[in-house]
Amino acid sequence: MPRMPTVIEIRTPGRGFTNITSQVQAELEGSGLCHLFLQHTSASLILTENVSPEVRTDLETLISRAAPDGDPAYRHDDEGPDDMAAHFRTLLAGHELSLPMADGRLMLGTWQGVFLWEHRTHPHRRRLVITQLPERQ
Amino acid sequence: MPRMPTVIEIRTPGRGFTNITSQVQAELEGSGLCHLFLQHTSASLILTENVSPEVRTDLETLISRAAPDGDPAYRHDDEGPDDMAAHFRTLLAGHELSLPMADGRLMLGTWQGVFLWEHRTHPHRRRLVITQLPERQ
Amino acid sequence: MPRMPTVIEIRTPGRGFTNITSQVQAELEGSGLCHLFLQHTSASLILTENVSPEVRTDLETLISRAAPDGDPAYRHDDEGPDDMAAHFRTLLAGHELSLPMADGRLMLGTWQGVFLWEHRTHPHRRRLVITQLPERQ
Repeated sequence: MPRMPTVIEIRTPGRGFTNITSQVQAELEGSGLCHLFLQHTSASLILTENVSPEVRTDLETLISRAAPDGDPAYRHDDEGPDDMAAHFRTLLAGHELSLPMADGRLMLGTWQGVFLWEHRTHPHRRRLVITQLPERQ
Repeated sequence: MPRMPTVIEIRTPGRGFTNITSQVQAELEGSGLCHLFLQHTSASLILTENVSPEVRTDLETLISRAAPDGDPAYRHDDEGPDDMAAHFRTLLAGHELSLPMADGRLMLGTWQGVFLWEHRTHPHRRRLVITQLPERQ
Repeated sequence: MPRMPTVIEIRTPGRGFTNITSQVQAELEGSGLCHLFLQHTSASLILTENVSPEVRTDLETLISRAAPDGDPAYRHDDEGPDDMAAHFRTLLAGHELSLPMADGRLMLGTWQGVFLWEHRTHPHRRRLVITQLPERQ
């Protein structure tokens, strides 16, 4: 029977970063590529510096300039001032990652961590699809 | 004989969004990952909210702030004021998507639609390469 | 024995663009997808217009507005004024590419070139992971 992608759920406490590197690592086997996909348009998957929390604070500062909450130009604000901002933040920061792996280990650089970046201000449950692809023999 | 990626052509009416979810879906079989790739540097492939057209209007507003047409700082304007803007818009919004699939169905979230975002003001023909990758057994 | 991703090292002269299309092309065989991954959070892999160097000059102008060096709001500046800017530039421009290939040839558009974009002002050695994935039979 052909294998299918795995879906896991991640709870977020509202806007901010959750390091999910270990949780993803635990699902992996073999060598090739691991693809991570969020089934949402208002949260991101990113790789960023995994030590200094100040880097994440500054990412938040910079992206809020490009995608401000409650901008007067927005036509779409059905779910509040962070609604449209969250869609554009997702466009800029992305919703998917592909990570090389060898013998079931992610081949990340020393400073790279995998983070789920929640863009909405309220807590959410986010569905993450994990697909594992074998390398060419 | 090894299978090769499929190329399809999509016509755009100039700057704006075309929902291509069904057109992509029609090409797919099996489980694993579907990779979509535009052979261009002035149009994007994005996933975004598929119901409210106001979301797309606001995406247009926000990206035009980051990549304005006819900025006086541009050195590259061979093809008009939208030329360089289109290249930077493509850099920000991307030109490729990888989508998980199960039994030939895209595993999209409820609100996710696949859009081709034309960044040039005039109509274009855009070449889209579709590659289907099987998951690890 | 299962094949594993390949790692190559690329030296950069400091901030700016290096065309690595030929170097990547030389590593490829078969049909399917080639995945390129930088093991860093302060340099990007991008596809952009491969003829006019003015396009790259303008990309530099535009991204430096979104991610300025030495912004007074930064809390993270351990390695100098380009440190945090480089992290946000990487977030916006990306650190990975997936490229379709047929019979070992990249299926790029006429104007698409693969560039390593160094975001730090000083020279660096950058590790690039190449993974090749076969298409579904």
